[in-house]
Amino acid sequence: MVDITHKYNTLREATAQAVVRTSSQKTIDAIQNDAVPKGNVFEMAKTAGLLGVKKTPELLPDCHPLPIEYAGIEYEIEGLEIVIHMTVKTIYKTGVEVEAMHGASVVALTIYDMLKPIDKGVEIRNIKLLKKSGGKSSIIFSGK
Amino acid sequence: MVDITHKYNTLREATAQAVVRTSSQKTIDAIQNDAVPKGNVFEMAKTAGLLGVKKTPELLPDCHPLPIEYAGIEYEIEGLEIVIHMTVKTIYKTGVEVEAMHGASVVALTIYDMLKPIDKGVEIRNIKLLKKSGGKSSIIFSGK
Amino acid sequence: MVDITHKYNTLREATAQAVVRTSSQKTIDAIQNDAVPKGNVFEMAKTAGLLGVKKTPELLPDCHPLPIEYAGIEYEIEGLEIVIHMTVKTIYKTGVEVEAMHGASVVALTIYDMLKPIDKGVEIRNIKLLKKSGGKSSIIFSGK
Amino acid sequence: MVDITHKYNTLREATAQAVVRTSSQKTIDAIQNDAVPKGNVFEMAKTAGLLGVKKTPELLPDCHPLPIEYAGIEYEIEGLEIVIHMTVKTIYKTGVEVEAMHGASVVALTIYDMLKPIDKGVEIRNIKLLKKSGGKSSIIFSGK
Amino acid sequence: MVDITHKYNTLREATAQAVVRTSSQKTIDAIQNDAVPKGNVFEMAKTAGLLGVKKTPELLPDCHPLPIEYAGIEYEIEGLEIVIHMTVKTIYKTGVEVEAMHGASVVALTIYDMLKPIDKGVEIRNIKLLKKSGGKSSIIFSGK
Amino acid sequence: MVDITHKYNTLREATAQAVVRTSSQKTIDAIQNDAVPKGNVFEMAKTAGLLGVKKTPELLPDCHPLPIEYAGIEYEIEGLEIVIHMTVKTIYKTGVEVEAMHGASVVALTIYDMLKPIDKGVEIRNIKLLKKSGGKSSIIFSGK
Repeated sequence: MVDITHKYNTLREATAQAVVRTSSQKTIDAIQNDAVPKGNVFEMAKTAGLLGVKKTPELLPDCHPLPIEYAGIEYEIEGLEIVIHMTVKTIYKTGVEVEAMHGASVVALTIYDMLKPIDKGVEIRNIKLLKKSGGKSSIIFSGK
Repeated sequence: MVDITHKYNTLREATAQAVVRTSSQKTIDAIQNDAVPKGNVFEMAKTAGLLGVKKTPELLPDCHPLPIEYAGIEYEIEGLEIVIHMTVKTIYKTGVEVEAMHGASVVALTIYDMLKPIDKGVEIRNIKLLKKSGGKSSIIFSGK
Repeated sequence: MVDITHKYNTLREATAQAVVRTSSQKTIDAIQNDAVPKGNVFEMAKTAGLLGVKKTPELLPDCHPLPIEYAGIEYEIEGLEIVIHMTVKTIYKTGVEVEAMHGASVVALTIYDMLKPIDKGVEIRNIKLLKKSGGKSSIIFSGK
Repeated sequence: MVDITHKYNTLREATAQAVVRTSSQKTIDAIQNDAVPKGNVFEMAKTAGLLGVKKTPELLPDCHPLPIEYAGIEYEIEGLEIVIHMTVKTIYKTGVEVEAMHGASVVALTIYDMLKPIDKGVEIRNIKLLKKSGGKSSIIFSGK
Repeated sequence: MVDITHKYNTLREATAQAVVRTSSQKTIDAIQNDAVPKGNVFEMAKTAGLLGVKKTPELLPDCHPLPIEYAGIEYEIEGLEIVIHMTVKTIYKTGVEVEAMHGASVVALTIYDMLKPIDKGVEIRNIKLLKKSGGKSSIIFSGK
Repeated sequence: MVDITHKYNTLREATAQAVVRTSSQKTIDAIQNDAVPKGNVFEMAKTAGLLGVKKTPELLPDCHPLPIEYAGIEYEIEGLEIVIHMTVKTIYKTGVEVEAMHGASVVALTIYDMLKPIDKGVEIRNIKLLKKSGGKSSIIFSGK
């Protein structure tokens, strides 16, 4: 684990993206009409993501435990794809990129699990960092 | 959560794939030469994956807790990509597809986290089920 | 921890109740109109309850880890009160009463936490077992 | 999750109450004479509460992880009831009300679980905030 | 993780020992007189051990999650040493030796943590398996 | 739990030691030749230790959750013994001695678990604090 005792606190923010690709418009319709048997997909996956992002240092060996001061999830539907944006903020010595990536993956996996009974062809694609600020560098990565 | 009290145990197996795309041959070389500063990438990510797969029902709301009787991770390097195969087995009433998907994502995220200091362009791609057996249907999905 | 090695599996079911008392009809209206700032109260609390019920043996020292084969949450609004019913099923050597009680308490606490910004007078009342079946005795406790 | 990056640290303290109602004086006697088969009720439930309070952000979706700097549990016996007081302190940007409520509920559930073999009529009542200080407002709620 | 899908269930039992060596008779007296400031050492450490043993597969990568059907802790004081015996039972395909070892270590660490303010010279010694039965072989290891 | 609200942050560091004693030079050779069937012992045990040290407050009742800002593991082979050094750093109000002890024990238990199939005589010895600095006192304890 990287030694961060000599670093100082700054406001850090990161947004990660995960994409869930369904195989049929029917699946997208079921989500939008709140007709998925396991429950409301967006609300349940958001809740799982809020809890999951706090578990990042329990799962990833080198992640420092840090005070997550904000976590938020947004969804966009683009054709057969659900695009998840997970944003995390902290005021701490190290960034929250991996936290955002992990949170986005938990949201995506929850959606996958909820859709599995109605769509066998769901895949998760493109878990990646979209932007980060704070620390030595602010970077905006090119879009999707 | 689906009621599985009426179901019976069968041997279930699932293999999921996650792909980590690096942005440079130097990154791949560092992994293969065990020269990544944070440690041995394949051994550390495997360990995180073995622990992570057991945490699946803690992260995904509808997943039943189940006796994971085998979990194994294999890596393949293809050009700039690391292809992760996570296989999970159980003898239980419900399958281990989501467990395999979640385990693969933890392995991929650990690799991402370990490579981040030496490669800013790493992405996770294509977390998907490759095959499953047991239960009502055995399916082999088409390759990568 | 009670030694259960000599016991045999039977279908066990338990339903527990928790009651969240709000202090104003406005709070109830906000829940029903999906106008609570923190999100959809019933969906988020259900999700937290599904995850929480699986953590029962992590929190209560003498609880055996057991295969939760069903967990479900239902809500009823009675005046200023939200009545939560948490039902849990297993096929195992010991009952799921405490699991149902713990799950109900997590649902109630999540509702409390979500309502706190809009209602300072929320209380949790009457966490109790409503009925259980399986094992040596089936009991239906008198109503609320 | 509420964004607290702009807030500043103050000393926060909260005390929550949970009430466990037994159905018989014999149960109370067994507790006071340290004659409950599962062990010393007050010591075991206190220990579970100290561990449980730290797990609050793992269970409640919107709770920020925060540095719990003190947690303490006190018991009072009033007739057939055990009154639990859980006090939590932090120096942080947000309060510890929900942490105190959750800790009190874990203590109450542990007592319930320990008494179950000797008293089938135990209920948990009145999980509520008694007082809080720090932040924008200090409030003392009216007693039990 | 070893593949155990082909194995069958038998009753498995294991007892592990951990020894906590204090540096002074005063420490032993404080424990026996229930005068340690942090609380009742034996009850608190037992509770931590009961919870800790259930977390073994969360901490040790290759441990299979398994149904712990009994866990019990016994203490003996020998001179300046506290001898902890942790016994674990399951009916499953694989043994509980490591679970017993891990549980014993959590009990020992809790005692260490509770005694630290009154005795700077505490050490943990001899965490080892005392006996196991079930599976291919029953073994009684020679004493302390 | 000790009230630390009145204390101030200082750099704290602690190193703990655990010793794993094997029963045969063949075991040591297998470790050094990376020929242990369960995988690379030092890398896997290190990973488990990095994750485990962060779980200290989940296992030990009186441990405050604190920001672990560094954790590192070193191994030395001395005859039939593996000597583990676990170092932890924080800038916080309370020390990391117990965290270092707990981390060292998780590393030792992982090694025990990995060696069990090839060596039935492995024991864990001498989990103890080697040195600490920060807080009221810096202490270097005498060697092994």
